[in-house]
Amino acid sequence: MEIRIEIIGFGTVGMGFLEILNRKADILKEKHGFVPKIVAISDKIKGSLIDYKGLDIQKLIKILKEGGNLKDYGKGFYTFEEKNSIDIIEEIDSDILIEMTYTNINTGEPATTHIKKAFEKGKHIVTSNKGPIALFYKDLKKMADERNLLMGIEGTVLSGTPVFNLVEETFPPNSIKRIKGILNGTTNYILTKMETEGMSYESALKKAQDLGYAEADPTADVEGFDALAKVLILSNVIMGGDLKKEDIKREGITKISSEDIKEAAKNGFRYKLIGSVERDENDKIIASVKPLKIPFSDPLSGVSGAINALTFETDLLGEVTIQGPGAGKLETGFSIMIDVLRIFKKINKQEKK
Amino acid sequence: MEIRIEIIGFGTVGMGFLEILNRKADILKEKHGFVPKIVAISDKIKGSLIDYKGLDIQKLIKILKEGGNLKDYGKGFYTFEEKNSIDIIEEIDSDILIEMTYTNINTGEPATTHIKKAFEKGKHIVTSNKGPIALFYKDLKKMADERNLLMGIEGTVLSGTPVFNLVEETFPPNSIKRIKGILNGTTNYILTKMETEGMSYESALKKAQDLGYAEADPTADVEGFDALAKVLILSNVIMGGDLKKEDIKREGITKISSEDIKEAAKNGFRYKLIGSVERDENDKIIASVKPLKIPFSDPLSGVSGAINALTFETDLLGEVTIQGPGAGKLETGFSIMIDVLRIFKKINKQEKK
Repeated sequence: MEIRIEIIGFGTVGMGFLEILNRKADILKEKHGFVPKIVAISDKIKGSLIDYKGLDIQKLIKILKEGGNLKDYGKGFYTFEEKNSIDIIEEIDSDILIEMTYTNINTGEPATTHIKKAFEKGKHIVTSNKGPIALFYKDLKKMADERNLLMGIEGTVLSGTPVFNLVEETFPPNSIKRIKGILNGTTNYILTKMETEGMSYESALKKAQDLGYAEADPTADVEGFDALAKVLILSNVIMGGDLKKEDIKREGITKISSEDIKEAAKNGFRYKLIGSVERDENDKIIASVKPLKIPFSDPLSGVSGAINALTFETDLLGEVTIQGPGAGKLETGFSIMIDVLRIFKKINKQEKK
Repeated sequence: MEIRIEIIGFGTVGMGFLEILNRKADILKEKHGFVPKIVAISDKIKGSLIDYKGLDIQKLIKILKEGGNLKDYGKGFYTFEEKNSIDIIEEIDSDILIEMTYTNINTGEPATTHIKKAFEKGKHIVTSNKGPIALFYKDLKKMADERNLLMGIEGTVLSGTPVFNLVEETFPPNSIKRIKGILNGTTNYILTKMETEGMSYESALKKAQDLGYAEADPTADVEGFDALAKVLILSNVIMGGDLKKEDIKREGITKISSEDIKEAAKNGFRYKLIGSVERDENDKIIASVKPLKIPFSDPLSGVSGAINALTFETDLLGEVTIQGPGAGKLETGFSIMIDVLRIFKKINKQEKK
């Protein structure tokens, strides 16, 4: 069955998603009966590309890999002034909107507007954008539920490493008492380098910047804002909380010295930037992001480099930890893919009725 | 919706399953619409209990916890000679058969016969028994598929820690290149004690036996037979292999000394009994169970005590590791629960059509 998809915000993750559609076209069709039809791509900087019959994915990838732009596709191109993302969402018929614009953790825009418009037009949503989910999850979920639409958000935490799908598909009827984990690869990389190579914080940060793990302005990572957005999402999506940014205590890693790290290691501990959400004895959701000394025996202690991990404390299963990539083109592209597949299954089921 | 369940083989895991049904009755009904109706329990030693209207789970748990037996339930009791497991499977109408007899890794019996009979009677299957799945997966899967029946096997590897449901629900369209992991808690406990407390193999084994982790005859664990059965299951169920026991190289942990462990640790390595399955360059499935020196940086190296873990090497997501309990009453009881819920969803969907 053909599923019509429009993509808003087209960067690395979008490219990863297209590459997966291309590489896995046969298995998606044969095993799942899934045939993607990309009817529109729109990006504020790159412009908009529309083809009601579905873009030739292979051709588009080739053009982009050879350094070309959307406009080199040959037809259906508009500048963003001619057709912007809102025009696309309102004018074009599609089944799923994939929202991949840059995260703005203060306003959630323009993603939140995109998602709301899409719901109004009866489109399912998949997004890797943390802004709208961290800030407005409850409202968006309500809009989706009222319209019997799905909202796939696997990519907002731990990229494609299963979190939301893991919890939803494999945990019931466990109740989750606490979620804690390493949610930011950049800070984990820095802490690992400081420990294993005795680097200073400044040298380790420099190295992370050279490798592209950290931005020129590293504040969002090293001060814990990125981890905070993810903790907020886990709190409100999985733990049923209704927290705001201000409700979460936040502390970054900038005050940790290589001496602190050495001292901790002597006693069998390792510093990790830990995001944590738990339900206290009064059923209140408490969340925080802060550097903690974790004993070597804790699974999170062994998570090194740019890898992410989450430990779920459950009532029936005890502690279960999942560890995997927290970023990357194909890895985050996969997070989009798995949610698109899940929505496809739902549409497929409804069609058959 | 009511789902009729019969239980064959009633020990610790069965008790764990009943306790979960009891503890989670409200959430199962309200959130999932699931109402269990246990119509029969049959155990070679404990006898058989039948109630077409559904046993009173709470009452039964109370009797058993107070040291009573199935026969103290008051009605519907038969000795195993009067009504054995085959009689139950053939005579009683039910939707799901839960097979929890003891694993026999050489014959797969009596579980294999139970499962085949159940399929012939149109019943779905859930099992935590490794024997039939390790030895006869392909045949059983074929029987199930031909009858549009499901076979839940989550409990055969890593107890309730998600493995098969994880792969099926959250990995597609990844292709899995390799699975490797710690599949036996007893040997992992022994190796951990030898390293952290400098114990000899013999003392660590004794300690594991005292704690009930190891049997009086520890061969199945320490010589790698238990891990081998699980590797066989992973090979044939997830990797699409068609291996026999004899195709898997097996080596236990009995030859590892505390000196070996110390020496490895000096160089940043830790001994672990690793089960591994991979697809080689000729698309052949290669599997083994053997002690390996794992670098401290590998997630499997940090898995300590009786905990289990599996690392999946995938083409899109890279390495993803799941870590959690590999045994336990509630933990394995949960593995049954999650598969029963999955089958319930399928039945529910069919009814609605």
